[in-house]
Amino acid sequence: MAVVVMKFGGTSVANIERIRNVARHVKREADAGNSVAVVVSAMAGTTNQLVEWVREASAMHDAREYDAVVASGEQVTAGLLAIVLQGIGIPARSWQGWQIPISTNQAHGAARIEAIDGSEIKSRFADGEVAVITGFQGREPQRNRIATLGRGGSDTSAVAIAIALDAEVCDIYTDVDGIYTTDPRVVPKARRLSKIAYEEMLEMASLGSKVLQTRSVELAMVHGMRTRVLSSFAEPESIQPVRAGMKDNTVGTIVCDEDEIVEAQVVSGIAYAKDEAKVTILGVADKPGVAATVFGPLAAANIDVDMIVQNLSSDGKRTDMTFTVEATQLDKALAVLEGARDDIRYRELNSSADVVKVSVIGIGMRSHAGVAAKMFEALAEKSINILAITTSEIKISVLIHSEYAELAVRTLHSVYGLDGD
Amino acid sequence: MAVVVMKFGGTSVANIERIRNVARHVKREADAGNSVAVVVSAMAGTTNQLVEWVREASAMHDAREYDAVVASGEQVTAGLLAIVLQGIGIPARSWQGWQIPISTNQAHGAARIEAIDGSEIKSRFADGEVAVITGFQGREPQRNRIATLGRGGSDTSAVAIAIALDAEVCDIYTDVDGIYTTDPRVVPKARRLSKIAYEEMLEMASLGSKVLQTRSVELAMVHGMRTRVLSSFAEPESIQPVRAGMKDNTVGTIVCDEDEIVEAQVVSGIAYAKDEAKVTILGVADKPGVAATVFGPLAAANIDVDMIVQNLSSDGKRTDMTFTVEATQLDKALAVLEGARDDIRYRELNSSADVVKVSVIGIGMRSHAGVAAKMFEALAEKSINILAITTSEIKISVLIHSEYAELAVRTLHSVYGLDGD
Repeated sequence: MAVVVMKFGGTSVANIERIRNVARHVKREADAGNSVAVVVSAMAGTTNQLVEWVREASAMHDAREYDAVVASGEQVTAGLLAIVLQGIGIPARSWQGWQIPISTNQAHGAARIEAIDGSEIKSRFADGEVAVITGFQGREPQRNRIATLGRGGSDTSAVAIAIALDAEVCDIYTDVDGIYTTDPRVVPKARRLSKIAYEEMLEMASLGSKVLQTRSVELAMVHGMRTRVLSSFAEPESIQPVRAGMKDNTVGTIVCDEDEIVEAQVVSGIAYAKDEAKVTILGVADKPGVAATVFGPLAAANIDVDMIVQNLSSDGKRTDMTFTVEATQLDKALAVLEGARDDIRYRELNSSADVVKVSVIGIGMRSHAGVAAKMFEALAEKSINILAITTSEIKISVLIHSEYAELAVRTLHSVYGLDGD
Repeated sequence: MAVVVMKFGGTSVANIERIRNVARHVKREADAGNSVAVVVSAMAGTTNQLVEWVREASAMHDAREYDAVVASGEQVTAGLLAIVLQGIGIPARSWQGWQIPISTNQAHGAARIEAIDGSEIKSRFADGEVAVITGFQGREPQRNRIATLGRGGSDTSAVAIAIALDAEVCDIYTDVDGIYTTDPRVVPKARRLSKIAYEEMLEMASLGSKVLQTRSVELAMVHGMRTRVLSSFAEPESIQPVRAGMKDNTVGTIVCDEDEIVEAQVVSGIAYAKDEAKVTILGVADKPGVAATVFGPLAAANIDVDMIVQNLSSDGKRTDMTFTVEATQLDKALAVLEGARDDIRYRELNSSADVVKVSVIGIGMRSHAGVAAKMFEALAEKSINILAITTSEIKISVLIHSEYAELAVRTLHSVYGLDGD
């Protein structure tokens, strides 16, 4: 017997029929003798409608009222799932964030969970009662108001609740059946990973693999909460119930500590992100302090800069700088740089949104040399020009022209031995 | 300056445009220096959708979960109205029942309010903050769960909150502009009443004039809370703001203590109810205890019996009984009576849903004789046969064939001098 937290997103609870399907997943775990807490999102479309009403009400809305409105969606789902569970003979009750309580800080709309009192829910596990919990929200205790965690926050709710309840695993049910070595739409030979390390998942998530919210993975990593991604559309009875101490995994992908991954690949996956734009500043002075004149104003305008390349100057006086920003922030970035032209004193400013960042990710890189060289060679062989490079301990990213995106991903997937049958 | 409670129903907050109109009503009161608490229902249609989902989830649903689901509708409206108010420069915050708290008993789905802590809201009045409160719901403290008051419960919420806040008046904004002497669709000469006594309103409300929920009027009567019915669709700026001690009334209808109604009419209004059905039991024994054999089983089956007429027996042995039940309960009542035939020992059972109850209502009746006689004469003159009669201190009701309903109402409206110009 184990404590299991199961989280279901909006498409998994989009209507009563799908909620009945969710109930069958819960029944499987309850029937196996597990203690179950279910975390639910709002029915698909609901949150968008609520957000639309809020925007229509006022462009400059109070974040606390926004939270009061949008938090209602999960409350509906939680009550409905509790009713469906009771209807098939499983004792259940719904819990809203303020009832548990799940305490948050005051950052309404993007609140962080500060504490969860799991005692009452745990004591009801003894009676076989399933807890159905509203995701995405908690209570800010100073003002006694509902605070939401931001879009996608239900993943974070689920992991935090799993930690508070000492769960065996936090199962995140989604519309995909796991984490793949790369996007299967680009590379049909992409394989589902049985396990992936927290650090790798963080790199995957922040690079556009939108299966798990980044914050939830960070939280899981800090507390060592094993988090599994699996499909809610799978036949509920086809999945093995969770067992205490279970280390093997037949469905989905478990995000876990790297120690649990016995034979780690050097590279676990290839990610790509199309939402970057490149900015190049030509002819700036090649002297100390020039970077500050460029990146200071951008930081002040809340523009995140990602990859930075400063070319070697040919004459020791003038040089060029290239960096990337989010494509949605490109216009703003250009405006800031034009405004700061007198301080930076550059000759020319140009930009392109026609770029893509491709990354190879793997904890095995730490102990293997030559991973980067292999990447550069493979790309050179296909005549793909590298515009910028960044690296971390477990990741190498290159910026290339968008037209080569698929070719690059496919090539690297093959080069690092990730192709399945 | 006064404390004002304003309640807006579902059609008055059906979309953002209407919510903006509500905000203008609130602004009028706030601009006049009044302290304002607004009580809102769910947007029209929302509660029906939520109830439908609950029914689809399970026919036998847990009332606590039903409450958790359906209470979400008012939470959305309260947040949206607070946002719209802030957008036009009026400090406002939304309050859910559990935040105030509004404490209820454990009768989920039909809970009664037991206590309201108005202290925090009152203290914020000093800063000019408008309180926007979810109607229809509170918190059941033992289990810390949301409890709803039943359909139409927002009127009761508003009156209870007005009492807790020592409000000058509880203004109920609806889609009609007040209480009329009778249904204007039947009698075009019907007049809007400027004032009506609580007792009269109770008789009007329970007789099918569905403007105010009966429980809210009872509550207002017990606590002497003046309650005004007025139209939310009136031009907000055309209405005079509330003033402390204001006794005159230019819009809507004030439901108040009869002492406040200086020149009470003998009859204030004519009500009719079409949802009654008549049951006649022929040839029952004319002896003590027979009524118990009839009405005992009906009471046990939760069937409310309204008008009862027992004919004089011609031979002292056998008699006939006539009574009315709600038309929706007729089939059930007949089944109960057929099941109890051996105990009651009647000759024949027949029924008709083709009847209507017409009532004349007025606190002035108490001090005027001959009101009933005038009614019977007027109906006789039109050859309208009376099937049953009931009377109370301030009401006389007759049961007649439905085909005479409009004629009877029109005749009585005229006879008692209620016709306007």
